[in-house]
Amino acid sequence: MKKANILSKQIPESKAIDNFDFILKDKEIDIVDICLPPYMHFSTALKFLKSGKHVICEKPLSTSVKEAEELIDYSNKNKVNLYPVFQYRYGKNIKTLKYLINENITGIPIKASSEVHWKRDEKYYNVSWRGTWKGEGGGVILIHAIHSHDILSFVLGDIVSVSANLATLVNDIETEDSASIIMSAKNGALISSSITLGAASNTSRFKFIFKNITAESGNNPYNPGEGDWAYIARDNSKQNELDKLIKDYQKNIFSDQDGFTNFFTEIANHL
Amino acid sequence: MKKANILSKQIPESKAIDNFDFILKDKEIDIVDICLPPYMHFSTALKFLKSGKHVICEKPLSTSVKEAEELIDYSNKNKVNLYPVFQYRYGKNIKTLKYLINENITGIPIKASSEVHWKRDEKYYNVSWRGTWKGEGGGVILIHAIHSHDILSFVLGDIVSVSANLATLVNDIETEDSASIIMSAKNGALISSSITLGAASNTSRFKFIFKNITAESGNNPYNPGEGDWAYIARDNSKQNELDKLIKDYQKNIFSDQDGFTNFFTEIANHL
Repeated sequence: MKKANILSKQIPESKAIDNFDFILKDKEIDIVDICLPPYMHFSTALKFLKSGKHVICEKPLSTSVKEAEELIDYSNKNKVNLYPVFQYRYGKNIKTLKYLINENITGIPIKASSEVHWKRDEKYYNVSWRGTWKGEGGGVILIHAIHSHDILSFVLGDIVSVSANLATLVNDIETEDSASIIMSAKNGALISSSITLGAASNTSRFKFIFKNITAESGNNPYNPGEGDWAYIARDNSKQNELDKLIKDYQKNIFSDQDGFTNFFTEIANHL
Repeated sequence: MKKANILSKQIPESKAIDNFDFILKDKEIDIVDICLPPYMHFSTALKFLKSGKHVICEKPLSTSVKEAEELIDYSNKNKVNLYPVFQYRYGKNIKTLKYLINENITGIPIKASSEVHWKRDEKYYNVSWRGTWKGEGGGVILIHAIHSHDILSFVLGDIVSVSANLATLVNDIETEDSASIIMSAKNGALISSSITLGAASNTSRFKFIFKNITAESGNNPYNPGEGDWAYIARDNSKQNELDKLIKDYQKNIFSDQDGFTNFFTEIANHL
């Protein structure tokens, strides 16, 4: 509460409240943003949906598919909206790639690779619920690589097969902190995902190889869709055309803000 | 023979010969370098080894483990040397990485990723033996990614598990041209290998994440061990020490020549 009070003084018309029931019953509150530890997401989101409020919920939405489906059911029944926080989707270059796919400029997808090579140490796990099955519900795959996997399926569509090697090699925790995963998409694309919290620095990276173009992000760990991506035409003679198309498209989309800002803007427009 | 004659005129004391038996019997010839299509490697190498000559053989040494073992047996029996062409091993940064591992500076390996994202089209496959099981003995894994897989096991040691998805998505050939592979090393490291011939340009890339350092290559497709690699210490305070160590080591190894030059120099020194 001490932190909350300090923050609320900096934001006009905001209040810090530590009474859960009060928020549940307050008719002035239309929407809540749940930023609690993972094990509290499902029960808290469900209570708010039942009380008729729209819910934004930090990832992971829940720690099981069954619970996620239950939340979606309630959201539909009560005609309230449920927004899991997948802000990577609102990165400029993810939108650009979806545009190029939809316009059939990319051609079929062939290969995608994703890296989530982050650095987390003992200090990070010095929080009781982290690194435990009960508190966090999963390891690096559920908690850190969730955004990248969301983007892979957002861009490439349904995933039909998954094989993985998991290991706990970096920190003394219950859950996995490193993984190699291969997936295949319904449309035939092959996918690689390389994940660890044992890196010397924080980098996220995407590479998408389509029949006609290859798109590669930079290394921005928390907004890989932002910044300058390389878009290379397989047919060299079409590079100028591709560059112009992307430039024209990007003029009309989000400014180069971070994913969160774009995500909340979209929610505001949607309500 | 026309091409061979033109080339031999440019190299003093060289001759172009199209008589296989003549070369086999010529006592002046101590060593041969086999650059024939893959399906001819095993039978040709075996004949030369039996005739007492040292053999350098382009990759793949053979198209089956059984044949490779037979070549090694003959090489040992006849006390002649057999050198498969794995010139990537002689890249400056591969040697540096091996040095850092051997000096126990890296700590245990955690994660490695490798990309072989190359561009090959119809024109490339317009050679009768290419892209066929009989002529090439395999697809992109055996032919193009073989060097990267050699480096992964050269750096990380024995591989104890492999899972893969293969597909033919780029060209109209018999063999695979794209693959996602995960492997685990005996020492516990998790490995990802992403492979395709459908990229818009040619890039090879390695990233090795150890407990104490992360090492990342550039994108040089045919000499990924050359050029400037990034070596990042997980403990920031040790970066200067690491930089100095690498600089000092690299002074005393190969000059920044390509892998082939270093490879042939090593063979000359070995004989």
